Amino acid sequence: MSDDDLRPGEMALTLEAASDARLRFVGVIETPFATRAMCPRQGDAQDGPICRIIVNAEWEAALDGIEKYEALEVFYWLDKSRRDLVRQSPKSDGRTTGTFALRSPVRPNPIGLSRVRLLKREGRVLEVRGLDCINGTPLIDIKPDRCGFTVQAPPKPGAA
Amino acid sequence: MSDDDLRPGEMALTLEAASDARLRFVGVIETPFATRAMCPRQGDAQDGPICRIIVNAEWEAALDGIEKYEALEVFYWLDKSRRDLVRQSPKSDGRTTGTFALRSPVRPNPIGLSRVRLLKREGRVLEVRGLDCINGTPLIDIKPDRCGFTVQAPPKPGAA
Repeated sequence: MSDDDLRPGEMALTLEAASDARLRFVGVIETPFATRAMCPRQGDAQDGPICRIIVNAEWEAALDGIEKYEALEVFYWLDKSRRDLVRQSPKSDGRTTGTFALRSPVRPNPIGLSRVRLLKREGRVLEVRGLDCINGTPLIDIKPDRCGFTVQAPPKPGAA
Repeated sequence: MSDDDLRPGEMALTLEAASDARLRFVGVIETPFATRAMCPRQGDAQDGPICRIIVNAEWEAALDGIEKYEALEVFYWLDKSRRDLVRQSPKSDGRTTGTFALRSPVRPNPIGLSRVRLLKREGRVLEVRGLDCINGTPLIDIKPDRCGFTVQAPPKPGAA
């Protein structure tokens, strides 16, 4: 069965082409995983191999200051995923769950999010652990992980 | 100063229109915050007001099963943010930090991510706490929070 076949009970929509907003890829992710079947499951990647995030040259300065964070959120575009499934059957057993109650890569907007550990920055290349996506996956954003992030902006009026 | 003015030291790129991938909005977020200045800072929203996530009718079944999660990740599109800043000055003091080392809404792809507590689902409406975005913000995805999520798919070959 191909990754793209519908499983028993799954429900797909017929949709117009997506056109509400547009993304700009800002780099590419290098992993040892050539196919979706080779990728670790979510949560299994924290002790996985070292992967590389290569930011496009024009965004290199956007990495300045990132060295002080150990944990990062990495956003990427799962460009091989279908986008029309409303209910999915992860176990292929005819029982289905809504797409928003799953972390499946098959979603209306296939944005992958991984929490990674930053090991090293060299120029516009980050070495990290914790990625579970296919080699060549387009990068869309990097942020310091919420838990470790200290807000720099001054407090807002009315904030506690 | 408008939210869109450059602050001292900030660095912007000249970019072609974004065209690498396209998003489909799947709903809208209702909050009591009419402007960016009214929004709480990240992390201040966990005890904030109850907000509503209204999923578009065609995606209602994608919520099935979500009731069993207390914590959700909500992805939304910060459609009012500029997207060309490489270095930013959160304190407006001439000192700047790279965009990828900040959680600012100003990013090449302005995707907001909040961790929220699910209080109630009624049809295609979720009541949640923990959002800090402007009223009317477009919704792009909802996933069970990583920490509370149990993988349903069978283990992959080679997985621990």
